[in-house]
Amino acid sequence: MPIAAIDLGGTKVAGAVFNSAGEIAHREVRPLQGAQGRDVGALISDLVRSLSSHSRIDAIGVAVPGIYHSERGTVWAPNIPGWDDYPLLQELRTINRIPVAIESDRTCYILGETWLGHARGMSDAIFIAVGTGIGAGIMLAGRVLRGSQDAAGAIGWLALSNEYRSEYDACGDFEYHASGPGIARAAGCENAEQAFAAYAEGDPTATQAIKNAVSYWGRAVANLVSVFNPQVIVFGGGVFGPAAALLDDIYKEALQWAQPISIMQVKLFSSKLGPDAGLYGAGAVGLENLNRKVALQS
Amino acid sequence: MPIAAIDLGGTKVAGAVFNSAGEIAHREVRPLQGAQGRDVGALISDLVRSLSSHSRIDAIGVAVPGIYHSERGTVWAPNIPGWDDYPLLQELRTINRIPVAIESDRTCYILGETWLGHARGMSDAIFIAVGTGIGAGIMLAGRVLRGSQDAAGAIGWLALSNEYRSEYDACGDFEYHASGPGIARAAGCENAEQAFAAYAEGDPTATQAIKNAVSYWGRAVANLVSVFNPQVIVFGGGVFGPAAALLDDIYKEALQWAQPISIMQVKLFSSKLGPDAGLYGAGAVGLENLNRKVALQS
Repeated sequence: MPIAAIDLGGTKVAGAVFNSAGEIAHREVRPLQGAQGRDVGALISDLVRSLSSHSRIDAIGVAVPGIYHSERGTVWAPNIPGWDDYPLLQELRTINRIPVAIESDRTCYILGETWLGHARGMSDAIFIAVGTGIGAGIMLAGRVLRGSQDAAGAIGWLALSNEYRSEYDACGDFEYHASGPGIARAAGCENAEQAFAAYAEGDPTATQAIKNAVSYWGRAVANLVSVFNPQVIVFGGGVFGPAAALLDDIYKEALQWAQPISIMQVKLFSSKLGPDAGLYGAGAVGLENLNRKVALQS
Repeated sequence: MPIAAIDLGGTKVAGAVFNSAGEIAHREVRPLQGAQGRDVGALISDLVRSLSSHSRIDAIGVAVPGIYHSERGTVWAPNIPGWDDYPLLQELRTINRIPVAIESDRTCYILGETWLGHARGMSDAIFIAVGTGIGAGIMLAGRVLRGSQDAAGAIGWLALSNEYRSEYDACGDFEYHASGPGIARAAGCENAEQAFAAYAEGDPTATQAIKNAVSYWGRAVANLVSVFNPQVIVFGGGVFGPAAALLDDIYKEALQWAQPISIMQVKLFSSKLGPDAGLYGAGAVGLENLNRKVALQS
């Protein structure tokens, strides 16, 4: 049952065909080049057609950078102009008459990791994505957490400090201090990569910035552990990456704050799927949807 | 379908018979008087027999002050000596051969409120219980959150401060500052009731203590809103109670920190069921279990 997986990002759209063993048999990437609205939809449709010219495809799974409203089949993607309520499901359904499933990128990340990553087979697992922003994909008792209006997992907004600062208005306390741009700002660097390089060379400002981020990541882990009692938390996104070496320090910080039994029951990992987590997640979403339809028909 | 509801606390066990309209037709209370282990089990069995002598009973629901391990049918109740892994399900099943269901008290609180309280009919709702300790009962997409090892909802351990203090070791940051004993300590009073009385008279130390608790409750609400995107959060327990008048201030604090769309979609209430939340929840648990069994048989 080959699956076409599409991972839409802010600057490019990646596509792959997964074979039934969960391996990528073929992949393609298209730059968005500032495309907006229907042009982005057309790029995705075109990519699906190209994938299907290389392989038979039985289902399509899509990861979108925002919120997917399943009851309407529409996508809110704040970084793509014209995608306030974009009817992506309807558009993709017309292509090959094969099942289409869409999920938010953070939902895809945890579905990818529970399918073929470090959370494989787990029922209670959380993916913390740390890049330009911070968000979480959360699986509970084998089901994805969506929230009443599909906005669950917005952990960049976690309050982890005593005093509010106006800088948190645009992104939240946790994201302000522990996202890629947050670390770069605190380290006096242009980006997180530079900050980690300076940290590796022992630069004191960068060291303080990373130490502060570890403290925030640790408190966030503690809170998710106390609330959810999960089996696994996976860190991913561009920052993990270089921050993967800090997992032990993050756990130590979390150990101090969290519910003492639950923190002993959780394991921390950095993503096994790395930059492909969204693509694998889209594959998992497409496969799961197909399996459900097959089960209903039999 | 009359239901026997049992709410086991640290000092007493309350019992009630709910008629099919969800009204309490009869109620009884027994003090524990320091009873331990099997004696507590015997008290509960005795109370069920007494309730069933007043009314026909079709099912039993029980709220326990701790964690219920559903796969083993046993209870961990830290404040009842000898209840580390107490086989309550087996014991109660022998009484009348009617369906028995057991849940932790915090799960019961949210099930009571979604049955007949301020969260009635809601699918995504949270009960924050603030008394001697702090814990949460959490309902997501119509299902109760348990966690991988039944320890979910331990929100007393939420990290909401920048710096760790050794005082948090025994109970967590949030509970240390915003539980009944936490408020009393900060206000220099013997208990929370006295602290609220001093606050009402304008005492500056008590005012500062209450203000600090509001700040903590607000940050906790913000975090639950950003993570879960719920429809309703209900505050209950002994402190709400007097703190119910502070809901607007709590919302204002949460508004500052939380994901800005999700915070507009949530409503805060203080418990409609008050001290009977656990009893109503036990009734809801018994009723739900009975309905499920009837549905399976038909």
